Amino acid sequence: MAGPPPVVARARTAVRVALASRLEDLADATAVGDLAPRLVVGVSGGADSLALLATTVWVGARMGLGTEAAIVDHGLQEGSDRIADRARLQAERLGAEAQVLRVTVDEGAPGGLENAARAARHEALETLRAERGALAVLLGHTLDDQAEQVLMGLARGAGPRALAGIPRARGAVLRPFLGSGRDETTALRRADTEEICLLHDLDWWQDPMNADETMLRSRVRHRALPLLREILGAQIDENLARTADLVGPDVDHLDAEARELLEALRREGGELREERDVLLLDVHALARAAAPLRTRILRDATRSAERAIRPDGGAGATKSLLRRQVLAVDALVVSWHGQAAVQVPGRIEVARRDGLLVWRRIDS
Amino acid sequence: MAGPPPVVARARTAVRVALASRLEDLADATAVGDLAPRLVVGVSGGADSLALLATTVWVGARMGLGTEAAIVDHGLQEGSDRIADRARLQAERLGAEAQVLRVTVDEGAPGGLENAARAARHEALETLRAERGALAVLLGHTLDDQAEQVLMGLARGAGPRALAGIPRARGAVLRPFLGSGRDETTALRRADTEEICLLHDLDWWQDPMNADETMLRSRVRHRALPLLREILGAQIDENLARTADLVGPDVDHLDAEARELLEALRREGGELREERDVLLLDVHALARAAAPLRTRILRDATRSAERAIRPDGGAGATKSLLRRQVLAVDALVVSWHGQAAVQVPGRIEVARRDGLLVWRRIDS
Repeated sequence: MAGPPPVVARARTAVRVALASRLEDLADATAVGDLAPRLVVGVSGGADSLALLATTVWVGARMGLGTEAAIVDHGLQEGSDRIADRARLQAERLGAEAQVLRVTVDEGAPGGLENAARAARHEALETLRAERGALAVLLGHTLDDQAEQVLMGLARGAGPRALAGIPRARGAVLRPFLGSGRDETTALRRADTEEICLLHDLDWWQDPMNADETMLRSRVRHRALPLLREILGAQIDENLARTADLVGPDVDHLDAEARELLEALRREGGELREERDVLLLDVHALARAAAPLRTRILRDATRSAERAIRPDGGAGATKSLLRRQVLAVDALVVSWHGQAAVQVPGRIEVARRDGLLVWRRIDS
Repeated sequence: MAGPPPVVARARTAVRVALASRLEDLADATAVGDLAPRLVVGVSGGADSLALLATTVWVGARMGLGTEAAIVDHGLQEGSDRIADRARLQAERLGAEAQVLRVTVDEGAPGGLENAARAARHEALETLRAERGALAVLLGHTLDDQAEQVLMGLARGAGPRALAGIPRARGAVLRPFLGSGRDETTALRRADTEEICLLHDLDWWQDPMNADETMLRSRVRHRALPLLREILGAQIDENLARTADLVGPDVDHLDAEARELLEALRREGGELREERDVLLLDVHALARAAAPLRTRILRDATRSAERAIRPDGGAGATKSLLRRQVLAVDALVVSWHGQAAVQVPGRIEVARRDGLLVWRRIDS
């Protein structure tokens, strides 16, 4: 008896590996027992998410897990409801329960439409997952998306966190087609997902209303990457994705180390003295931290100060914290010559006073 | 009285800042007194190095430092001696002492011609610096070189170390035109150096015999970057260079942390037991290190094992150590199920034995 076509076998392995690591993480947290035997797949109607759904239905069934398709309709485009219905039909043909989640995207949100749409979509998927007690939400991002993400990060001059790309697993959200991160052959390409759809006779939406499709992404996908493949070689996508795999663990480790250090420094920082004070850290203890940890701590501390001031809507303004501002705060620590306080987003200023770095509310 | 043209002022600031940080480092090491008041500038005859020479002669004179131009003739191209002579004349017109260093490049070297030429050039410059007791060797790399370097790293799928780009300072070697790393406006563009050459009425070599100019570099410089500027915006060079600035401190910190950990683990590793054993590390202590540190330690340990076996020509073969091999060794530590020893370059194998990871010579 012949096995499945190679691309189908690879997709199944990818889903199995992702689910196994999720189960392992849950076993550590001893919370598996509380979950219903169910998976949620986020479906846009494009080839990637339909291929993932087809694969997950198959793998899930063999693990005793039911699969539910969640089709998010962002309502941002004329006819998005018809596209969503069409995706629902494809999902039902695959034997998955399916439902359309209609979300409202704040088109004027400060971080831009793409971020607002993603936030709304993730919230809707997580709400559904929690309601169902599902094991995981699976998303269909492929190696092509990862390569685009890395190139977009570079085009913006963003830091290591952006180069680390799209996470393959974060909490209950899994992206099996990004591969294992330890073996590049385990990731799927966008073309692989189209092949899987053809094999399943699925009718995918060629140019789905994709809330992710910003101007920058579109330029990267349709113009920059095709040219780079020609000039630098066809393996450029794999190599950009590998960059994400290589940078990711470094960034995760340093971020975690900085969070721990900030917690320790908070305890040493002592008591707030003035009414406007929000957070105090000992300057000399800070100065002992290596530069890449120090700048992370200063970022985290500023976000934390904003949350302390505005518990409801905090850590929004400080997303626009600039590297220049972080370095100005860092200079208060390591190149102190009596500088003035540094203003940062969120109506906060950071000043040095009596060997302490003080985050203060700006009242006006 | 009008000051110098802005581009000249920026170049002078860049050289001053680089020299100040070198003097600071030396003051920490209390070795300034042993050095002659002299600077060496590596000159190719291109606009970047001639502009750097002109700037360094001026800044050096005001700091009481003489400037010497070192023109490296790699002898790789017909007429390279005439180009070198022409560069020498330009240098002398600027009032610098100048000499041509003829080096021999091993064209069949394993790491490729570009690496061999760079190694020969750096060795010749360092030898001259040491003979003269000079404070520093200054090189003319600009932000454009940095952007190319980062894009080349990406094109190859290289890791964070490659994304960190060209170091602005390593030991006595300074690259002032890469800027301060804390403020992007301090870096110079290639076009800035041409402007400086025009202002000094210097006759630079338009397409200098550049041993760095590999196929990949040429494709990146002449084809990929111009297209990316068009598609993604003119700031792509600055943004790629900024990536290097953002990734660099992370990588330096993790590399240093891994080196320290390896030293500590070596002391715990215990005595070599068999004749073929080269290095032992405790598996459980290794397993406690975070993944990005562990993989660095395993790389460093493998290089160190090669040096121990071949003190004269060591750590050459292990340069070709693959990520796949490092992950296979890592699996001996964190996913042990009785695997066979892993062969790595340098005729070394790594095996797990009695709770130890053992680097062994392969005799054949």
